[in-house]
Amino acid sequence: MLPQRVTIVEVGPRDGLQNEARPVATADKAAFVRRLEAAGVRELEVTSFVSPRWVPQLADATELLGQLRRPAGVRHHALVPNVPGLERLLALPDEARPQEVVVFGAASEMFSRRNLNCGIDESIERFAPVVARAHAAGLVVRGAVSCALGCPFEGPIAPAAVGRVVGLMRGIGVDHVGLADTIGVGTPGRVREVVEAAAAHYPLTDLSGHFHDTYGQALANILACLDLGLARFDASVAGLGGCPYAPGATGNVATEDVVYLLHGLGIDTGIDLDALADAGAWISERLGRPSASRAGTALHARRRLPT
Amino acid sequence: MLPQRVTIVEVGPRDGLQNEARPVATADKAAFVRRLEAAGVRELEVTSFVSPRWVPQLADATELLGQLRRPAGVRHHALVPNVPGLERLLALPDEARPQEVVVFGAASEMFSRRNLNCGIDESIERFAPVVARAHAAGLVVRGAVSCALGCPFEGPIAPAAVGRVVGLMRGIGVDHVGLADTIGVGTPGRVREVVEAAAAHYPLTDLSGHFHDTYGQALANILACLDLGLARFDASVAGLGGCPYAPGATGNVATEDVVYLLHGLGIDTGIDLDALADAGAWISERLGRPSASRAGTALHARRRLPT
Repeated sequence: MLPQRVTIVEVGPRDGLQNEARPVATADKAAFVRRLEAAGVRELEVTSFVSPRWVPQLADATELLGQLRRPAGVRHHALVPNVPGLERLLALPDEARPQEVVVFGAASEMFSRRNLNCGIDESIERFAPVVARAHAAGLVVRGAVSCALGCPFEGPIAPAAVGRVVGLMRGIGVDHVGLADTIGVGTPGRVREVVEAAAAHYPLTDLSGHFHDTYGQALANILACLDLGLARFDASVAGLGGCPYAPGATGNVATEDVVYLLHGLGIDTGIDLDALADAGAWISERLGRPSASRAGTALHARRRLPT
Repeated sequence: MLPQRVTIVEVGPRDGLQNEARPVATADKAAFVRRLEAAGVRELEVTSFVSPRWVPQLADATELLGQLRRPAGVRHHALVPNVPGLERLLALPDEARPQEVVVFGAASEMFSRRNLNCGIDESIERFAPVVARAHAAGLVVRGAVSCALGCPFEGPIAPAAVGRVVGLMRGIGVDHVGLADTIGVGTPGRVREVVEAAAAHYPLTDLSGHFHDTYGQALANILACLDLGLARFDASVAGLGGCPYAPGATGNVATEDVVYLLHGLGIDTGIDLDALADAGAWISERLGRPSASRAGTALHARRRLPT
């Protein structure tokens, strides 16, 4: 039984642009977010309060959020790695402040050590005060679990390892959890096992999927999740970004491809697919590279032809 | 309940190369087929006996088949549009002659008229003597149904229209039927309806799926077919080819992506994925264009890195 409605969390402005070679001006980022909102996207991962030393592409987090006027019904998300990052976010005026913050863990011990400079257990300990402070300020906290299907250093990751870190996130009060196939190696059977391992700790309504299309498997994996009742997915318009550790990577699944699938299945997203494809074409042009979305490319080509 | 084993019909040498801009020398085509066979592919759509006037890329059908030495257990397929085409095929010596011929119909009246210069009913009448002659010569006949999900001229195609042409093919003795999403517009729910409409006329073991990745939906559609018990799919290594009528088309689903999915699901294909990806990289280089396979590209990049 498929869900009747699915929520797309558009991660292009953060996860996407963070992993693109060409920098984008703050005003263009704001215009990009506005185009996505005008296309009906209601949840957006807009930026990150990671140290500008590590992620210079997103050093303009405060400035960008200050330029945005969030429409009614729209929720913004931002990554926060630690309490100082969260304090920078909380210093924003109410109307500019994202309603949801994301802490970023991993199901792979080696990936955690390379990416966060500490093991999984220690990363959860470090996140605990972030979660507490965010909750005190009235924010929702998502926990992202990277390498939920496989790790570039460790190889395949056992579903039990995913269940373990999801349980630890539950223990520190994380509100909902995103399961991320960071290097895109998952296939539907394994994805099902991972969702089931996470569902031991959270109801399905508090779980979301984040898939990469590196091996072309993202939509098949999303279909498997839909069959389980999952109804929340990250996606990146034009397939922006990816994982810098994944060789030959096409990155995030393209939002246009996901929305095409969902609408074809009769599932409501609230998104205007043509307007979304236009936003994808617009940012691709700004980045000087072709869109990585197949649906976006096909829709755009079709609309340029005489009818 | 997924099938334990799936048969891939590799259509790159015919459907793929027919729709590529750059011509390929006959010797390279033969080398390509041999690489695919060495990778474990056991069913290959090798060429076409359509008039060279219409498809000059495949004018070397007789010469190509003469250069091939079919390994034990391998089956070759060839398109035959009419009795004269079939007679050219039958003139080949036994060891070079394909075991399976393909007649090409459509579920869309307008597509049939534009592509075959006659309506659906008349196309079936024309195929009847081809089927009879092929059977008399001991060949298996597949009926391909193009536009099974949608038509570039008519738009969406009703599953009942697919059921109708499949029933007509049954009537003239076609052995098994391939359902083709020629322009790649299908999504899993509609695909299921189409397979069910065809299954009114043939057992599932005599049906196969042919999907295009124009909108990125091919693997999700294949997963839906697997869930129904379908166990035979066309695919084109490196995503070669496509439909010349589909704007902005990436074409056929890439064999590497399909095999990655199937192996991930624990389904046996008999194919060595690394060797397959090498064949895809090899022909892409010959064609002077990047591979359209995501799995192929990722596997190839990974293997070039130091481990």
